Amino acid sequence: MPHIDLPEGIPGIRSLFEYRPETAQPLLQLVEVLLRDESTLSRGERELIASYVSRLNECQFCEMTHSSFAALQLEEDWDLVDAVKDDPAGAVISDKLKALLVIAAAVQRSGREVTSESVEAARAEGATDLEIHDTVLIAAAFCMFNRYVDGLATWTPEDRDAYLPRARILVEHGYLAPVTYPTA
Amino acid sequence: MPHIDLPEGIPGIRSLFEYRPETAQPLLQLVEVLLRDESTLSRGERELIASYVSRLNECQFCEMTHSSFAALQLEEDWDLVDAVKDDPAGAVISDKLKALLVIAAAVQRSGREVTSESVEAARAEGATDLEIHDTVLIAAAFCMFNRYVDGLATWTPEDRDAYLPRARILVEHGYLAPVTYPTA
Repeated sequence: MPHIDLPEGIPGIRSLFEYRPETAQPLLQLVEVLLRDESTLSRGERELIASYVSRLNECQFCEMTHSSFAALQLEEDWDLVDAVKDDPAGAVISDKLKALLVIAAAVQRSGREVTSESVEAARAEGATDLEIHDTVLIAAAFCMFNRYVDGLATWTPEDRDAYLPRARILVEHGYLAPVTYPTA
Repeated sequence: MPHIDLPEGIPGIRSLFEYRPETAQPLLQLVEVLLRDESTLSRGERELIASYVSRLNECQFCEMTHSSFAALQLEEDWDLVDAVKDDPAGAVISDKLKALLVIAAAVQRSGREVTSESVEAARAEGATDLEIHDTVLIAAAFCMFNRYVDGLATWTPEDRDAYLPRARILVEHGYLAPVTYPTA
């Protein structure tokens, strides 16, 4: 049960967005820029970073949400999404993305864990400053979102299929589009 | 030295805001709502939560920044700000704020560390749902900001006085006002 009186029947962070629209707006604008706007990292790759950090923070709602957002934007390759979360170094992704995920994992522990060596390693695989910046901010932002969702004990649907209707809306219309519940 | 090529002579998160204005905008709007908009928690109290979480994350730039923002909005009581960061339970603040700082410290570790007991304890001291919500989101947001600032190894001025010109602008004009460097 949530720690505060949230609207019923709305899962995870969406119940918090309904509860406090004043903070929902900048939070949604932030992820729209970071995960959807023009970038040399694909939308699927950026959602992989979000789902990987959510796994590391053990935030089930965010992990399932962003895994579905990643899979739908990576040719429905759910096995790839699972492989990245289980062992990024062994997954079939670019060496650049692997190096960026090392940085993301460091950020998840602490900003001070990001080393010059890990940044140089990413650069050696072709990562740009902007890609490194965005990786750090995506990882940091999910350290916020994961704590926000779990810190207020929001409702987490357990069935992976429950996340699909929302994921389809996201892929087509983005984070700022209105979402009506139930979406199934 | 910063991990990426940031504008020189601009400290901490401000160099990141200059580097990436597209993400700066929602980030600044978020703190403007959380730390400045109308609330039953004073601006000084909310900045105390921000500086306490930054201390726990050992982010010196954010701790010094938000300690100065807190002090200037708490009758320049720097000793109180230091006391809260060192030992909130022993500081001369309301029992409600002490209970909210317990929740903030839990969020800093993990969202799943926030217990029903700690929420009930805050409620018993008069905390509202909205105050509990905002405390969780402020603490979570500083787990993002601290990682963003340190994850890219931004420049941290070491002299407390260096933070004062910026703090005076903040108190008068808020987070969304333009800041010119050097401010001293």
